[in-house]
Amino acid sequence: MELLEKRILKDGLVLPGNVLKVDSFLNHQIDVELADALGAEWKRLYADEKITKIITIEASGIGIACITARHFGVPVVFAKKSKSSNIGNDFYTTPVVSYTHGNTYDVIVSKKYINENDKVLIIDDFLANGSALHALIKIVEMAGATVVGAGIAIEKAYQTGGNMIRDLGYRVESLARVKSMDGGTIEFC
Amino acid sequence: MELLEKRILKDGLVLPGNVLKVDSFLNHQIDVELADALGAEWKRLYADEKITKIITIEASGIGIACITARHFGVPVVFAKKSKSSNIGNDFYTTPVVSYTHGNTYDVIVSKKYINENDKVLIIDDFLANGSALHALIKIVEMAGATVVGAGIAIEKAYQTGGNMIRDLGYRVESLARVKSMDGGTIEFC
Repeated sequence: MELLEKRILKDGLVLPGNVLKVDSFLNHQIDVELADALGAEWKRLYADEKITKIITIEASGIGIACITARHFGVPVVFAKKSKSSNIGNDFYTTPVVSYTHGNTYDVIVSKKYINENDKVLIIDDFLANGSALHALIKIVEMAGATVVGAGIAIEKAYQTGGNMIRDLGYRVESLARVKSMDGGTIEFC
Repeated sequence: MELLEKRILKDGLVLPGNVLKVDSFLNHQIDVELADALGAEWKRLYADEKITKIITIEASGIGIACITARHFGVPVVFAKKSKSSNIGNDFYTTPVVSYTHGNTYDVIVSKKYINENDKVLIIDDFLANGSALHALIKIVEMAGATVVGAGIAIEKAYQTGGNMIRDLGYRVESLARVKSMDGGTIEFC
């Protein structure tokens, strides 16, 4: 998506360690007009699907998920990150390894808010190694619901997550796919 | 606001310890049509103000803040919660005591995303003892920006936060003000 790629080139920062910082428009500060354009694009791409629910993960996915949900006319459920695995029987839960933060946490979603009739679109800001997206897919399927696909703002296509998820048979629509950031220069697929 | 009060009566749960659970429509699961109605109401209430930015705090404020920001045509900045006070000089930071979770955390906002020309509307889902709202006000003022006011979905008016903030001279527009939940029955002001 040209609008997003141009914005990444204009305002994205490449930091040491292959970090792409987009916190001036996508997380921390959110350009809600841009988020609305992302939502419209996902609606166009998934126009033929009967989405009943959008699922994302706290914190930086919530804003774009909610604005996207306005295009689909469905509620958002955001998975919570929990350090405690002692949360009772009311939640679906699965662990995620965060390479960014070097820790492991549990993703939890109340059993009340996904059921077997749901057709779920998963929205997130980033896809790199795929561990968060894979965890959300697992949670949706634990509930017996259907994963229609994922809408990702920025995919680091030089990492393995996107293709790993696609190879499992899931549809992933990433609106900007970064091929490389070598020497601080961002190239898209 | 009648729409929100009715929804609280219909779907809110009063749990032991004076906990009002609204996670079927306001946090965890978010009814984005309702959030849009809240945003429209805050826009009506603050119609005469020139808001340049909406600030909220992760995680449950982000969704309603982003949807509200569409009504104002401004970006959202969400304050992050940090366990580490060693975050360098690029952030405004102030501590918050969470009575809900029985701990203390730092709220941080990058200095890049608030400046002295900003006129800020603070949006959050809950106001009880006021510690999170007070921290956001402090952060805005550290930046030399102006706090135009706050938009709160649900104020627990039997706790002291709302009036404490109003007594400091800030405008607080709470769309549902809970007077009491004695015996599990919710009464509004």
